[in-house]
Amino acid sequence: MRGTVLYGPRDIRFEERETPKIVQPTDAVLRLAATCVCGSDLWPYRGLQPIDGPTAMGHEYCGFVEEAGSAVKFVKPGQFVVGSFAASDNTCPNCQDGYQSSCVQREFMLRAQASLLRVPLADGTLVPTPGGPPPDDLVPSLLAASDVLGTGWFAADAANVKPGATVVVVGDGAVGLLGVLSARQMGAERIIAVSRHEARQKLAREFGATDIVTERGDAGVARIKELTKAIGADSVLECVGTQESMMQAVQSTRPGGFVSYVGVPHGVSLDGAQLFFSHVHLHGGPAPVRRYLPKLIDLILNGKMNPGKVFDLVLPLDQVAEGYRAMDERRAIKALLRPQAA
Amino acid sequence: MRGTVLYGPRDIRFEERETPKIVQPTDAVLRLAATCVCGSDLWPYRGLQPIDGPTAMGHEYCGFVEEAGSAVKFVKPGQFVVGSFAASDNTCPNCQDGYQSSCVQREFMLRAQASLLRVPLADGTLVPTPGGPPPDDLVPSLLAASDVLGTGWFAADAANVKPGATVVVVGDGAVGLLGVLSARQMGAERIIAVSRHEARQKLAREFGATDIVTERGDAGVARIKELTKAIGADSVLECVGTQESMMQAVQSTRPGGFVSYVGVPHGVSLDGAQLFFSHVHLHGGPAPVRRYLPKLIDLILNGKMNPGKVFDLVLPLDQVAEGYRAMDERRAIKALLRPQAA
Repeated sequence: MRGTVLYGPRDIRFEERETPKIVQPTDAVLRLAATCVCGSDLWPYRGLQPIDGPTAMGHEYCGFVEEAGSAVKFVKPGQFVVGSFAASDNTCPNCQDGYQSSCVQREFMLRAQASLLRVPLADGTLVPTPGGPPPDDLVPSLLAASDVLGTGWFAADAANVKPGATVVVVGDGAVGLLGVLSARQMGAERIIAVSRHEARQKLAREFGATDIVTERGDAGVARIKELTKAIGADSVLECVGTQESMMQAVQSTRPGGFVSYVGVPHGVSLDGAQLFFSHVHLHGGPAPVRRYLPKLIDLILNGKMNPGKVFDLVLPLDQVAEGYRAMDERRAIKALLRPQAA
Repeated sequence: MRGTVLYGPRDIRFEERETPKIVQPTDAVLRLAATCVCGSDLWPYRGLQPIDGPTAMGHEYCGFVEEAGSAVKFVKPGQFVVGSFAASDNTCPNCQDGYQSSCVQREFMLRAQASLLRVPLADGTLVPTPGGPPPDDLVPSLLAASDVLGTGWFAADAANVKPGATVVVVGDGAVGLLGVLSARQMGAERIIAVSRHEARQKLAREFGATDIVTERGDAGVARIKELTKAIGADSVLECVGTQESMMQAVQSTRPGGFVSYVGVPHGVSLDGAQLFFSHVHLHGGPAPVRRYLPKLIDLILNGKMNPGKVFDLVLPLDQVAEGYRAMDERRAIKALLRPQAA
């Protein structure tokens, strides 16, 4: 089987790798219908996050169960399934609390930009689509649920978005855009998207943004305060992961309001006293996508949300390197990859 | 009138000061029944927080309304009132959201270790005791509501303490001890107090602590994990304000659990990535005591809580310097000061 391997900065290769097989009896092997490139993949791609030798890439996936291990009870060969980027048993205390991405047996998925994928803890990780395999045109949206939508949804949930709320989304990557869509779905009245990029502004508006702010840093905070009666927003979704975006998020929130952060922070440090006097609630971390999957799959299958629109580039899987390039150069918001029939 | 002035490290004087009078028509002047020394007063007392010349001290108070300004509508001379350490109009959007300590007109109280006190925004700041002046033996508990109980209560509320919860309180100062009492009142099942000091451990148990942990730092985290099935606590109240205590709090919390922090952080910095993977909720700031005052006064007048027990030293106001010394040397948990009749 061929799969995607990062060798060093901007050196993505699609090459022969070991074919995945059942290792633990709780594993399943999937034949993927689609996979994609994540914004977080760009950190090591750009050399901003060290790698330890050639590294298999990819953690977003959906497809058909090819084989299930002997201890797998609920997931069956032939089912179409969506899974989280974090494998979980869905039974430990953290899973029971809804934090499956902090499962005591958690494994981060790492090899999904390929045609076949081994998924550990299959019963806890994978959710079959009800009513059998979905129509092919819903595959991009179902793939999105695996991480980027699940993460945008968690951003909105962790920022306590409620009907009627005023929401700010910092970051116009795919997660930020799906944060906009999620906030709209949760009933936010006003959604202010921070973006300087025309195509992304357009998609943000399509997903439900009511206002666009192009300023960053202090100027961005000042503009958001103007739009929120000088008080700040109820809920702010930080979807970038830099010091500047985190500070913009905290300072744009009203006292007692909620800030969420869902991208791994890179070089972010929070001053205790500044946070104290901001009076905000702060919550984030790796999105517990598994918690939301049944609901998100339902919303997608019922046509309530079309998150697949974030994929503005579709490539055959063997052109994965072009997917990375297009996202790195901001020519594409997010690249979907379609494995070819074997 | 004489009042308390800090001249420099460990130099507290009780000396002649200007007698407070109505300045704004929204002011009231109180004749205090009691005031006290706060843990936060020890930062400048110890020279750990710079002062800008001689500084009038004190921000906790209750007593009788002596005079009300011409625009004061609800507070009347002769009433016994309790007020927050932060004056607020109680009508601005932040106040309406329950964050009166971030009122757009907020003024931190500063001159309360005296017999008379001017309170700005009297209608928004002061809460009269229902049914007239309280019996004198309830004055210490009502005084506690002004800050130390209100802050402990906020710590428990901001850490989302629920019936049946497992709670950790980091810090055995008066705020931490009243955090224990508040968590008990809110129905926590298990309350783990972090304390090395015998008298404080005893009071923590009296207030409802079920377990005492004496270890700090990593050893403290390990001990708390042992006590919480290796997962961590649901709610952790950080009532110290140092880097070590904040880290102990974050690391003692289960993924998805809640950390509150209520003392002004001194030199605290939070690493974004560490916080991200901890998966905790974080909330704190200056306690919005005004939000809780009616409820706290009711609980005290009805004998449901006796927070006044934190005052283990009672002095006439003119011996205020001894109150600071006793707290600085940890001979007293908290010193109550009684003004003499004029």
